[in-house]
Amino acid sequence: MTNGVERYVSGARIAERVARLAEIGGLPNGGMNRLPFTPEDRAARDLFARWLSDLGLPVRVDGAGNVIGRREGGDPTAPVVMAGSHLDTQPMGGRFDGIAGVLTALEAAEAMGAAGFVHRHPVEIVDFAAEESMGRFDVSMPGSRAMVGALKSEDLELRCRLTGETLREAMGSIGIDLSRLAAAERPLGSIKAVVELHIEQGPHLEEAGKQIGVVTTVAGSVRYHCVLEGQQAHSGALPMAYRRDALCGAAELLLAVERAAKAQASPPVVGTVGYMDYEPRSPVIIPGRVRMIIDVRSVDAAARDAVAADIEAAARRIAVARRLHLEWRLSSGFPPTPLARAVVDTITRACEDLGVSSMPMPSGAGHDAMTLGRRFPAGMLFVPSVGGISHAPQELTRTEDLEAGAKVLCRALCMLAA
Amino acid sequence: MTNGVERYVSGARIAERVARLAEIGGLPNGGMNRLPFTPEDRAARDLFARWLSDLGLPVRVDGAGNVIGRREGGDPTAPVVMAGSHLDTQPMGGRFDGIAGVLTALEAAEAMGAAGFVHRHPVEIVDFAAEESMGRFDVSMPGSRAMVGALKSEDLELRCRLTGETLREAMGSIGIDLSRLAAAERPLGSIKAVVELHIEQGPHLEEAGKQIGVVTTVAGSVRYHCVLEGQQAHSGALPMAYRRDALCGAAELLLAVERAAKAQASPPVVGTVGYMDYEPRSPVIIPGRVRMIIDVRSVDAAARDAVAADIEAAARRIAVARRLHLEWRLSSGFPPTPLARAVVDTITRACEDLGVSSMPMPSGAGHDAMTLGRRFPAGMLFVPSVGGISHAPQELTRTEDLEAGAKVLCRALCMLAA
Repeated sequence: MTNGVERYVSGARIAERVARLAEIGGLPNGGMNRLPFTPEDRAARDLFARWLSDLGLPVRVDGAGNVIGRREGGDPTAPVVMAGSHLDTQPMGGRFDGIAGVLTALEAAEAMGAAGFVHRHPVEIVDFAAEESMGRFDVSMPGSRAMVGALKSEDLELRCRLTGETLREAMGSIGIDLSRLAAAERPLGSIKAVVELHIEQGPHLEEAGKQIGVVTTVAGSVRYHCVLEGQQAHSGALPMAYRRDALCGAAELLLAVERAAKAQASPPVVGTVGYMDYEPRSPVIIPGRVRMIIDVRSVDAAARDAVAADIEAAARRIAVARRLHLEWRLSSGFPPTPLARAVVDTITRACEDLGVSSMPMPSGAGHDAMTLGRRFPAGMLFVPSVGGISHAPQELTRTEDLEAGAKVLCRALCMLAA
Repeated sequence: MTNGVERYVSGARIAERVARLAEIGGLPNGGMNRLPFTPEDRAARDLFARWLSDLGLPVRVDGAGNVIGRREGGDPTAPVVMAGSHLDTQPMGGRFDGIAGVLTALEAAEAMGAAGFVHRHPVEIVDFAAEESMGRFDVSMPGSRAMVGALKSEDLELRCRLTGETLREAMGSIGIDLSRLAAAERPLGSIKAVVELHIEQGPHLEEAGKQIGVVTTVAGSVRYHCVLEGQQAHSGALPMAYRRDALCGAAELLLAVERAAKAQASPPVVGTVGYMDYEPRSPVIIPGRVRMIIDVRSVDAAARDAVAADIEAAARRIAVARRLHLEWRLSSGFPPTPLARAVVDTITRACEDLGVSSMPMPSGAGHDAMTLGRRFPAGMLFVPSVGGISHAPQELTRTEDLEAGAKVLCRALCMLAA
């Protein structure tokens, strides 16, 4: 009896909940500032927990802060079918990234309830804690990492770039009980499938005119921390030839990142400097020191690593030519992750059953499903992002696309949980 | 009786006072954070006032915050001979910039007292308020500006880039009585000469092996505020070809500033980006907006303006090529300022009399004496900066050079005040 449950999915209800959540940490320009482990994050998590309770689902928060609602199946010991995403945002982020995945999973659970759907496997609807933690800390996705035993205790001591507090302190500040962290890990075999709906965050679905992207692989990322140190000096008095301007060196490196990534067109690689700090920040001082984080990604590890090697070589050349001291350190990385064939096929079949247009595609961004995919069968579906814009106030996914995505998700979950 | 007063000048006493002041706002790395109109600035001003009082000199603070000690002359109505510099610093600045000029002027007054020097003109020893205010606000030198009627009331509403408070609020916060601002202006003819000793902040004296630089001209500066606006987006999901990365555009412009300044070798021009802000500052977001301040200086106005025009043309080219929106605005500027021949000659003669090696030279940096030179005869002498480093914790001027400078300053003041 997996057919027809998706009839109970309501796009209007999803849009209404998107709007409700957007009131928590919303910016005047339409963007969101709901950074992980802040009072805003806590408020959004609490609201989600209330919505789960309103559906009659028991809710718990595990030792990593994941908020989990559970729809019990006929066999409570059967492996779990899990769906969800995250409610936190980037600084100046959008209203859909992560949120779409949580709310469509919630909608699927609501539809199952309304349809009286009977299933064997337990279904869990999850807000994975702090998927966007890279916006504050040098670690991403502590929630889903903990589920696969990949949140290291030293990660908890990483400090926030904005406030200086540790990840441990930040998690504690919203009431997460880290003494139960180990118990958040899910044993091998305990999850049958994870399905995450997410906004695409790129332009491909819109350009192809498709409503659903069925993700086959998630790009692997590497991040480098780079420090360039020159000599701080007076901007008026020191002649150009004497300068060791760290910010000029950083500018040259930034353009080298862009050039190296652009040069690798197929398979494509992207390279970005989204974070750069320098000192001392006065219009009349030649900057003496710059720290930057370089992010390089591709679904093809060899192409990505070749671009990263080009960038590192450029950094070393620039440092020598400009008499700058260079520190270069790989800070984090994920290999490209193929998603589970069985789950991918289930999502594809759900699209076909419902007559929703779809196409297979890679994901350029990392997601909780990718992390969970290290240990459990995981799949993802994308819904279109208008203009390909994300991590930005302009982020938009249309309600009809959210509804179509929720229906596909619901049907896929029903098939997996049956 | 102008001869011999400088015998009473003590380099050791100057060095001791440098060390005392360095305790106020000192950083662990030897640098200084004594930003204008902060509690640290106030503490340094109070200490200077105490030192003046200890010499038996009456002290007053004018309506712009200049701290003024006065050694009365035989004719209290005669035009003033003024010496001084500033006690505030840049963020992560040094222990000598400005401070050397205030303490050597104080030392000259102390020597005059010890020698029982008799003179006609009043001598004023001044800490000009907030010479380094460009480190916080988009206006420099409010103290000396006010003395020549060039501090505009709208300048008082400029906001600090660091705290958001206005200049008016910042000045009020350390007890400056702005209701008396107009009275801080000095009428034409009321000042016979201004002499400012300053550290060179460049490498030329050290390279030439001279102890004193007699400044003939102060470079003119222009500052542009530039905003580049692109589209914030996801660093992993948006392909390179779709990006409108504002930080990449800023990097290209930054290198254009460097290139344009380097290309203009004679007369030399310097160009610097010391302040740059971008948003939203996450490693996983393509930056959507950058604001930068571009500083261009030369003793040759035409050469400077040609370089500035090259930079603006580059900014417009970059904006078009990268589909960025550009805002470009001249925020402040000074013309190159020749110093007063009579004062320059007096300083040169003092060097010759004392057998101290000297050379004429331009100043790349702006100074209070330049501002006062708009209305009054002004001169400057430089003492060497080790390695040409300034606006930095490594800033250093040797005690023997401070002493030689103080002796030349003392003798020049005696000649002018006699």
